[in-house]
Amino acid sequence: MARLVMKFGGTSVATIERIRNVAQHVRREVEAGHQVAVVVSAMSGKTNELVAWCREAASLYDPREYDVVVASGEQVTSGLLAIVLQGMGIKARSWQGWQIPLTTDDAHGAARIAGLDGTGLEEGFARGEVAVVAGFQGIHAETKRVTTLGRGGSDTSAVALAAGIQADRCDIYTDVDGVYTTDPRIVPKARRLDRVAFEEMLEMASLGAKVLQVRSVELAMVHNVRTFVRSSFDDPANPQAGTLICNEEDIVEQQIVTGIAYSKDEAQITLRRVADRPGVAASIFVPLAEANINVDMIIQVVSDDSTTTDLTFTVPTADYERAVTILEGARGAIGFGQLQGATDLVKVSAIGIGMRSHAGVAAKAFKALAEKGINIRAITTSEIKFSVLIDAAYTELAVRTLHSLYGLDKA
Amino acid sequence: MARLVMKFGGTSVATIERIRNVAQHVRREVEAGHQVAVVVSAMSGKTNELVAWCREAASLYDPREYDVVVASGEQVTSGLLAIVLQGMGIKARSWQGWQIPLTTDDAHGAARIAGLDGTGLEEGFARGEVAVVAGFQGIHAETKRVTTLGRGGSDTSAVALAAGIQADRCDIYTDVDGVYTTDPRIVPKARRLDRVAFEEMLEMASLGAKVLQVRSVELAMVHNVRTFVRSSFDDPANPQAGTLICNEEDIVEQQIVTGIAYSKDEAQITLRRVADRPGVAASIFVPLAEANINVDMIIQVVSDDSTTTDLTFTVPTADYERAVTILEGARGAIGFGQLQGATDLVKVSAIGIGMRSHAGVAAKAFKALAEKGINIRAITTSEIKFSVLIDAAYTELAVRTLHSLYGLDKA
Repeated sequence: MARLVMKFGGTSVATIERIRNVAQHVRREVEAGHQVAVVVSAMSGKTNELVAWCREAASLYDPREYDVVVASGEQVTSGLLAIVLQGMGIKARSWQGWQIPLTTDDAHGAARIAGLDGTGLEEGFARGEVAVVAGFQGIHAETKRVTTLGRGGSDTSAVALAAGIQADRCDIYTDVDGVYTTDPRIVPKARRLDRVAFEEMLEMASLGAKVLQVRSVELAMVHNVRTFVRSSFDDPANPQAGTLICNEEDIVEQQIVTGIAYSKDEAQITLRRVADRPGVAASIFVPLAEANINVDMIIQVVSDDSTTTDLTFTVPTADYERAVTILEGARGAIGFGQLQGATDLVKVSAIGIGMRSHAGVAAKAFKALAEKGINIRAITTSEIKFSVLIDAAYTELAVRTLHSLYGLDKA
Repeated sequence: MARLVMKFGGTSVATIERIRNVAQHVRREVEAGHQVAVVVSAMSGKTNELVAWCREAASLYDPREYDVVVASGEQVTSGLLAIVLQGMGIKARSWQGWQIPLTTDDAHGAARIAGLDGTGLEEGFARGEVAVVAGFQGIHAETKRVTTLGRGGSDTSAVALAAGIQADRCDIYTDVDGVYTTDPRIVPKARRLDRVAFEEMLEMASLGAKVLQVRSVELAMVHNVRTFVRSSFDDPANPQAGTLICNEEDIVEQQIVTGIAYSKDEAQITLRRVADRPGVAASIFVPLAEANINVDMIIQVVSDDSTTTDLTFTVPTADYERAVTILEGARGAIGFGQLQGATDLVKVSAIGIGMRSHAGVAAKAFKALAEKGINIRAITTSEIKFSVLIDAAYTELAVRTLHSLYGLDKA
């Protein structure tokens, strides 16, 4: 007997028919003798409807009330799945965040999990009950007000729940059948990975892979929750393989590069001939941070006259115009010659724990991209990944080139 | 300064625009210096959608899970109204049943209120906050599970809340502007009543007037909550009169008859020549009760051969066929000669506390109806009302006749 957490997202519970399919997956695990907690999202589209109402109600809405409104979506699904399971003869009950309780801080709308009391759920398991948990929501312990974890929070709920009840595995059922070496829509030769290390998954999620929320991967890594990404559209009686996200040590044959990720809608800003004095970086990046503009790749090089420096960095395309306006406004305070910008760029990244112990992994890529005539605008590297910034028109070519280069193509 | 409970039903909160209108009503009372708790229903149509999902999920659904699902409707409205009020600069917060807490028994789907702890709400009033309470829902104290009070439960929530926080008045905002002497759609001369006694309102609600739920009137009577029925479609800046439901003693000029109610879709069953022996009534009515058929008017007369009896009673038209099948099946056990039935009947009732002290009130009606050629099929009376069963074709004529007879017509 194992203890499992099974998580189903909005598209998997979009209709009662699909909820019945979810229940079949649950039935399979119950019949295999496992203790099961199921975490559900709101029915697809419901959260958007609720958010739209909040926005219509007031342009600046109280996030505490927003949480009350949007948490209702998961509440509905949890009750409906419990009803469907019971109708199939499986003992089940729904649990809201406040009933467990799953406590969070009071950062309403994007709360962080503080703790989880598994007592009630354990009592349910002892009675042979499936626990159907409303994802995405919690309660602030002091104020007793409803909180939500932010978009994609149900993944995080599921992992936190798995950690809290010492589950043997956390199965994330989604609309894809696992984590791929890269996006199969642009690289038909992409392969599903059987296993991927927490650190790699974290980089992939941060760098554009949309399978899992970054926060849920962080949490899984910290609490060492074996997380299995699999398809909810499998035949419940004959489930297929997925991808296990686990400790590095549990991966027998480690590749040097595990996956290629890409992130669209990047914009680049270069400030030429910035005065090379202490504090100049702060004078540029503090105003951008205060405007909530997320600066990503930063490259500084000494400029040709060697008394000034050239500074290049990227921001999301959506924030490009605002960033330029802010920088032009601060031109006096910063002191720079020229502002050059480019939008419609893409960041392509290669991720792999094996990079730690292999030199020259990135260099090989630069050469391969150059041979294809792809101009690299910026490069950043870290211990287990490197990223290159290129023109968006070369996205597919670059991703395919790197995918082949590191031996990731399907046989 | 007074303390008010204001209750708004589903049509009054059907859209964000209408919720804004509700907020204007609240603003008026807040600006008048009152402490205000608002009770809201689900947006019109939402409860039906949620109930339909439960039914689709399983034909026999767990009422505890049903409650989780349907209570979400009021949760959404409470958050949205709080947001709108805050947007207008009025301090407000939402309260779910479990947060107050408003405790109930565990009769899920139709729970009865057990108690209400007003502490949290009082603290909110002290901070100058409007309390926006999700109607219809509560919590069972032992199991900590969500309960609902059954259809129309928001009226009951509002009255219970008013009792629990010792409100000076409970305003029920609805789509009509008060309680009328009869249905204005069939009697254009119907008048709005300024005041009506609890007992009268209870009879009116039981006998077909749809303004308020019977249970909310019972609760208002028991706890002596002055309940004011008024229109939510009034101009919030210029509210019109409504109807105050109050103690008999607070009504200065008591009419003999206060109102005429009618209830459609009645069916009549007559059993001829029933053996006149002890236990025969039980042999008829127990099987009907077991089939959940609600028997209303019952009249028993000795039949012409004086050794048997004729028994007449009414059931809802929707249950007529089932009732006849059950009775024919039990013909041997009961022992009766002939079963006669009629559908398409209506029960017309006159209600008035003044009847207690005035004789001949009903007799006057029988004469007036006879003069119009209306045949009375059955009569029942109680201390403050009498009802006659007639063919549905005569509904308007009978109601108008009685309305004029007792001096209720508008000048």
